[in-house]
Amino acid sequence: MKTRFDTADQALGAFYEAFQNADLKAMMSTWLNDDEIACIHPMSHAIMGRSAIEASWAEILAAVPEIRIRTETLFQQRDTNLVSFTVLEHIHVKGEAEPRPPMIATNIFHKSGDDWGMVLHHASPPGPLPRQKPPGERGRIH
Amino acid sequence: MKTRFDTADQALGAFYEAFQNADLKAMMSTWLNDDEIACIHPMSHAIMGRSAIEASWAEILAAVPEIRIRTETLFQQRDTNLVSFTVLEHIHVKGEAEPRPPMIATNIFHKSGDDWGMVLHHASPPGPLPRQKPPGERGRIH
Repeated sequence: MKTRFDTADQALGAFYEAFQNADLKAMMSTWLNDDEIACIHPMSHAIMGRSAIEASWAEILAAVPEIRIRTETLFQQRDTNLVSFTVLEHIHVKGEAEPRPPMIATNIFHKSGDDWGMVLHHASPPGPLPRQKPPGERGRIH
Repeated sequence: MKTRFDTADQALGAFYEAFQNADLKAMMSTWLNDDEIACIHPMSHAIMGRSAIEASWAEILAAVPEIRIRTETLFQQRDTNLVSFTVLEHIHVKGEAEPRPPMIATNIFHKSGDDWGMVLHHASPPGPLPRQKPPGERGRIH
């Protein structure tokens, strides 16, 4: 298994391949080997640090059905040691006729030495808004 | 009005000050003067390009009540010409006893010439998950 990435693009591809394959070890190899990393799953609070992030993915990947993931890059920014990709995650579950509504994820990669690794994964659902507000919920500002 | 920012930190502060003041012109001055910019409002699809982003903020700021916004930086990454901040947005509406549940936003700034400006705002609610699924919704994978 390749555990070093020469470019941010390689690390991004490997991240989604590991997600598709439900391969936790491969997934964690795409994150920078550093505790200054953060992960925001859809509709979730920020998880900080390597061990907490690994635990969250272990739970997700243990439960994931057989899926195919295709990503569509909407937006990217590149600097010498930092690259961000904002992508649509098109997830197709085996046996379902249609892909799920895509999630939007901003993925940031940092170069440390010669190695690129993920430092931030921030994913969110693009809506639609829930039709029924939970009891007591007030109007949204932002 | 200052419309050039010497640091990404200044541009970040000015962005939230403009949001708090519902000042569209000040808000748009914090975005890089470039069409390669993207904005994801909570539970929304990505909006690309300056005119569409300005229109979305015009609608939000026209409807916003009197608010105070305090940001709490959870995570940041810095390179020579690219800086990202992931923050909690604590929004307090005048007359309400408690702040709203915070949004999480990843804000990316790019340096163009001597000027820093926002190139990506990706905001999302941290949950909790809606208690009632819309009809037909399937289980969440990610």
